[in-house]
Amino acid sequence: MTGIHIVGSGHTAFGRFDARSLEELIVEAAREALAEAGLPGTDIDAVYLGHFNAGMADDGFAASLIHQADDGLRFKPATRVENACASGSGALYAGMNAIRAGRAKRVLVVGVEKMTHRATPEVTKALASAGYQGDEAEAHLSFPQVFALAAKAYAERYGDPMVAMAKIASKNHKNALANPLAQMRRDLSFEQCNEITEKNPLIAPPLRLSDCSLISDGAAAVVLAGEPAAGQRTAHIRAAEQVSDYLPMSRRDLLLFEGPKRAVAQAYAAAGIGVQDVSFAEVHDCFTIAELLMYEALGLCGPGQGGRLLDEGTVYRGGKLPVNLSGGLKAKGHPVGATGVSMHALSYRQLTGQAGDIQIEAPELGVVINMGGAAVANYATVLEPGQV
Amino acid sequence: MTGIHIVGSGHTAFGRFDARSLEELIVEAAREALAEAGLPGTDIDAVYLGHFNAGMADDGFAASLIHQADDGLRFKPATRVENACASGSGALYAGMNAIRAGRAKRVLVVGVEKMTHRATPEVTKALASAGYQGDEAEAHLSFPQVFALAAKAYAERYGDPMVAMAKIASKNHKNALANPLAQMRRDLSFEQCNEITEKNPLIAPPLRLSDCSLISDGAAAVVLAGEPAAGQRTAHIRAAEQVSDYLPMSRRDLLLFEGPKRAVAQAYAAAGIGVQDVSFAEVHDCFTIAELLMYEALGLCGPGQGGRLLDEGTVYRGGKLPVNLSGGLKAKGHPVGATGVSMHALSYRQLTGQAGDIQIEAPELGVVINMGGAAVANYATVLEPGQV
Repeated sequence: MTGIHIVGSGHTAFGRFDARSLEELIVEAAREALAEAGLPGTDIDAVYLGHFNAGMADDGFAASLIHQADDGLRFKPATRVENACASGSGALYAGMNAIRAGRAKRVLVVGVEKMTHRATPEVTKALASAGYQGDEAEAHLSFPQVFALAAKAYAERYGDPMVAMAKIASKNHKNALANPLAQMRRDLSFEQCNEITEKNPLIAPPLRLSDCSLISDGAAAVVLAGEPAAGQRTAHIRAAEQVSDYLPMSRRDLLLFEGPKRAVAQAYAAAGIGVQDVSFAEVHDCFTIAELLMYEALGLCGPGQGGRLLDEGTVYRGGKLPVNLSGGLKAKGHPVGATGVSMHALSYRQLTGQAGDIQIEAPELGVVINMGGAAVANYATVLEPGQV
Repeated sequence: MTGIHIVGSGHTAFGRFDARSLEELIVEAAREALAEAGLPGTDIDAVYLGHFNAGMADDGFAASLIHQADDGLRFKPATRVENACASGSGALYAGMNAIRAGRAKRVLVVGVEKMTHRATPEVTKALASAGYQGDEAEAHLSFPQVFALAAKAYAERYGDPMVAMAKIASKNHKNALANPLAQMRRDLSFEQCNEITEKNPLIAPPLRLSDCSLISDGAAAVVLAGEPAAGQRTAHIRAAEQVSDYLPMSRRDLLLFEGPKRAVAQAYAAAGIGVQDVSFAEVHDCFTIAELLMYEALGLCGPGQGGRLLDEGTVYRGGKLPVNLSGGLKAKGHPVGATGVSMHALSYRQLTGQAGDIQIEAPELGVVINMGGAAVANYATVLEPGQV
């Protein structure tokens, strides 16, 4: 199997950008990734777009908008992949397959979403469409409500997770202070996240505002290559595994997080590593309870034991396995289709020493876990430094 | 490169199915394809869904609905691909890459759309979102208006295409009489298609109702395999090429149909064949003017010469290269995301002698051309009989 390397990255700031179109976000990230890879569009063999949309953008057929970034891309195959909040990883994995299949040598992957121009109830409705529509009970749930159910079930089965969740929120906000691309760069203390106040109201009990990720505009991009070229900084994708579970929650036990756990276990096995080898992880913290469960998926702890990792400092910057150094979906922002690409792009920058103020020293292995829906589409990637 | 074979197919009738959900359509087609391939879900390594949606269905994250077809699919990667009216081929090509990449041995591809529950203006708006939204002038065009512009430009450059277009409509309606899966099985004479009447009004001048494809519900499925198993009827995919053009029409000359032409030329070159070797073709006749231009893309004639193929009978059943024996999008129906998969599924049935009343004698090569947008995402596939 051909090795896959990330050889360039692009990343707009995440935030609210009223004046910038979906196309402009795509073009900015794509051009930055091509420039970083030192490649003209003519050297790219295929492009893939990760984009959720679900009514948020007017652009119903956005794949070829990537061609607007560089005239050298004309006539190159363009494909949009949608897997809810994992659309970005879906595009990246399809791009990897094009290289492994021998159909492309270099692939440009862009993830994008534009959400803030819609009113919050509209965004909530668009996101809720990623739940199962065939069951009245599930179809009417918003995603905050879905993860509120998870938090309640966690409390019943293992004990109250709310303190751990507030610690996660505070940690990710603190991490985002060092990330100039993050949407929300404001130090929120544990107390601020743990208390229900006017500024931190209940959104879907027991979830507080600070337990929820942001509504964001933004794009991210990576250039993938089978063979890196001289002079490129590269990260090698050592393993990449996707596991998709049933869509209806009634058919499974959400709290088991079987999809993420299987994806990570498969990725570790394919990479020949264990959690003790991982230097950092970017995981899908669409809600703080999700990050808590991701600690289990990472193999850091057993069921219901995630709080310990926070108590012991393991997942903080400076800890044994820092999680979401970027600030995560929680504070970096969560432009849905961009998120998976962003996680890979920032991990690439981390592994190539280009992560600026969120850089850690000499990371050896990074893990990305990107999730679509409530543990439905699950992607786990293991990355390591490539050539310098 | 691993060879790719179609080893099973599924195909719901196309039509108006108020009582059947998107999920039910997916499940029906998926189960039929698995049964035809003689495979349980556990033998499938990945599933791909072709689906446009753009607001027509409530299901915002439909890939894992394929898992509802067979419990053996649980945990298998599920991915939705969207490339407007070529979403089905997009899914199929991504599935082929998974096999060529060595990530899957057998892949289930389903294409689906549910449209008839929406009012026609809503459907028109959803489809129009597949045009370029960044230019006021283009964003406001419906697809009938886009192809009306093509028909007008054709008249100016080459001469009036309306008679040829009426012949195409009548031909495809006649072909659909023999296809029990077709939505509209009614013999429409050339005169009926060529006259503007109460029953055949102008939709977007000069396009008449009979020049437009249908609004449809339906699903189609194929099982792809790198290595066929004993007892399976198979078609071999000899070449499969995708070419994507700029989205804005202002950046290109639509009438040149450069994307479809390049895709077909690349596919012929990869297959080592010429148009004289092709036994039948299923081409994207979203509007009759599109089929007329597809004759040029197929290499049957030079620019503006498509009418000749109709005068000489070449593209009729019994002619040298029958086009759209299924009835085409025009009469078989056009459930957007299902169309590309349907074209491949019915070509498979044709090449394996399972095409019923639309079967032709001993076909040696079939060509599929599926197009997303106005010649933006273009897929050309060459298929031949595999093992019997």
